[in-house]
Amino acid sequence: MSAEPKYKTAFACAPLVYVNGDYVAAQDAKISIFDRGFLFADGVYEVTAVISGQLIDYAPHIERLKRSLRELGMDMPCSDDELEKIHRSLIEKNGIDEGLVYLQVTRGSENGRNFPFPAGAKPSLVLFAQSTELSEDPKAETGVALASVPDIRWERRDIKSVALLAQVLAKQEAKSRGAFEAVMTQDGYVTEGGSSSLGFVKADGTIVLRPFSNAILPSITRQAVTKLADQTGVAIEERLFTLDELMGASEVFMASATALVMPVVKIDDQRIGGGQPGPVVRKLRALYFEMADQQAREQSDAWS
Amino acid sequence: MSAEPKYKTAFACAPLVYVNGDYVAAQDAKISIFDRGFLFADGVYEVTAVISGQLIDYAPHIERLKRSLRELGMDMPCSDDELEKIHRSLIEKNGIDEGLVYLQVTRGSENGRNFPFPAGAKPSLVLFAQSTELSEDPKAETGVALASVPDIRWERRDIKSVALLAQVLAKQEAKSRGAFEAVMTQDGYVTEGGSSSLGFVKADGTIVLRPFSNAILPSITRQAVTKLADQTGVAIEERLFTLDELMGASEVFMASATALVMPVVKIDDQRIGGGQPGPVVRKLRALYFEMADQQAREQSDAWS
Repeated sequence: MSAEPKYKTAFACAPLVYVNGDYVAAQDAKISIFDRGFLFADGVYEVTAVISGQLIDYAPHIERLKRSLRELGMDMPCSDDELEKIHRSLIEKNGIDEGLVYLQVTRGSENGRNFPFPAGAKPSLVLFAQSTELSEDPKAETGVALASVPDIRWERRDIKSVALLAQVLAKQEAKSRGAFEAVMTQDGYVTEGGSSSLGFVKADGTIVLRPFSNAILPSITRQAVTKLADQTGVAIEERLFTLDELMGASEVFMASATALVMPVVKIDDQRIGGGQPGPVVRKLRALYFEMADQQAREQSDAWS
Repeated sequence: MSAEPKYKTAFACAPLVYVNGDYVAAQDAKISIFDRGFLFADGVYEVTAVISGQLIDYAPHIERLKRSLRELGMDMPCSDDELEKIHRSLIEKNGIDEGLVYLQVTRGSENGRNFPFPAGAKPSLVLFAQSTELSEDPKAETGVALASVPDIRWERRDIKSVALLAQVLAKQEAKSRGAFEAVMTQDGYVTEGGSSSLGFVKADGTIVLRPFSNAILPSITRQAVTKLADQTGVAIEERLFTLDELMGASEVFMASATALVMPVVKIDDQRIGGGQPGPVVRKLRALYFEMADQQAREQSDAWS
């Protein structure tokens, strides 16, 4: 493995961020040390892709946010309209054309540290934006490598919580092995990537995906890709699959709001599909951007 | 179950706290929103009991801290001397006679959010103190109740990380069922409490404890209790045990830096030992305070 990092993995935050009602400079953006996000990982998050300055699949992200909050007995920190306004303000104030908006809600803070839910605490709301190359992402041309690691996470991976230490360790391990992303396995089966969903293409062109359950996150991007595949007559098979199956597939891909649809060309020491992105995943990525462009145009019309 | 909370579970922080080099008022104590403790639960903590204004079992807490950091590839944020000085300053500045000092180290921050370890980030260090009644804790007279919940945590519970969301949910569930603490079970066996270690006394007076492994935290207070039991001729048996065994025991106890040695008199709807603290646990609690008083006297002599 190369000692040089093969992939750009560090992106800087845009200058202006949102913290509990205020737009402030990133370097001044602070939260109480008693915030339960800091003390207990008692919070949830969402990451929404921005393409042509517009939010992609925003509605399902907010639906998933509400589900995560509900599962943890937490409240929405503000109205739906207010939340969308903050997202759009960050894009506008920071001049984001392509990138992402990150959103985190925590159970707030009290003066001290006590495990049970605090009575009457106001949820904390933090958002920031980041410029990243999505449509011209060089990784999509070459494909990326995965490194397999055991999935040691908790049992409620369907909740998009900030208790991400296992994912940090998985993705650091992947990076140290020259890979872009981890592929996590448990009980002999692939669960998902460190911060992405994984799927593969069978010889007959069928796409195989693990069924949603408490074991993986209901990926918004994967759901968009599934819909696009379905619309173009590609069959989808939802079932458990092993790492060996994934490594023997002709095409493998990851799906996330930051990688979108990304071809995987290597897993551990095994090349996938001759080490080149394959036609099905290329096609799905192209369809994804068509869908995103269409969404962006519609929003641009609606908001202008 | 009573609708009224039976136990005091909310304690307020002492006025002065320590954040990355400064002593500041608790309400002004803030950390960057990019701190990896807030974004990723990428940090560890310790809680040390304070009795007679002195730190109890401080050395093993710091040893465990160093182990947690090492397991996560993190550095100590400052020298050992400096860390002890901060602990003692917080006790002194806040006039803590009995209570605790909380310490948290995170992997620090960079300008943005990226899973892999940031290059050259400085660890964050946060400490605060809290006054609580330890030697005169009314719960020790009556004993406390436990509520059983499934243990859904990750597989590295030996690391004292701030990824505590599962524990928050377990302890909130316990509170909502009128209990003081959760007893977590997995694969048919008891693991530990939501933020404590659990043990029981057999009919022949032997104390039964689960062996340390990745499945539970190496409790400092439990180790102190084990040593005291051993010194007084009480046998210790380390093995897996079930919830049924725990519920059928004559005496059950929890051990933690905030509960110290605490008799358990109820688990779910089952009364333990007739619903009263038993002689072995009472004795161990008394021995613990003798040991703590001895430690406090020695420190007081050394530091005066």
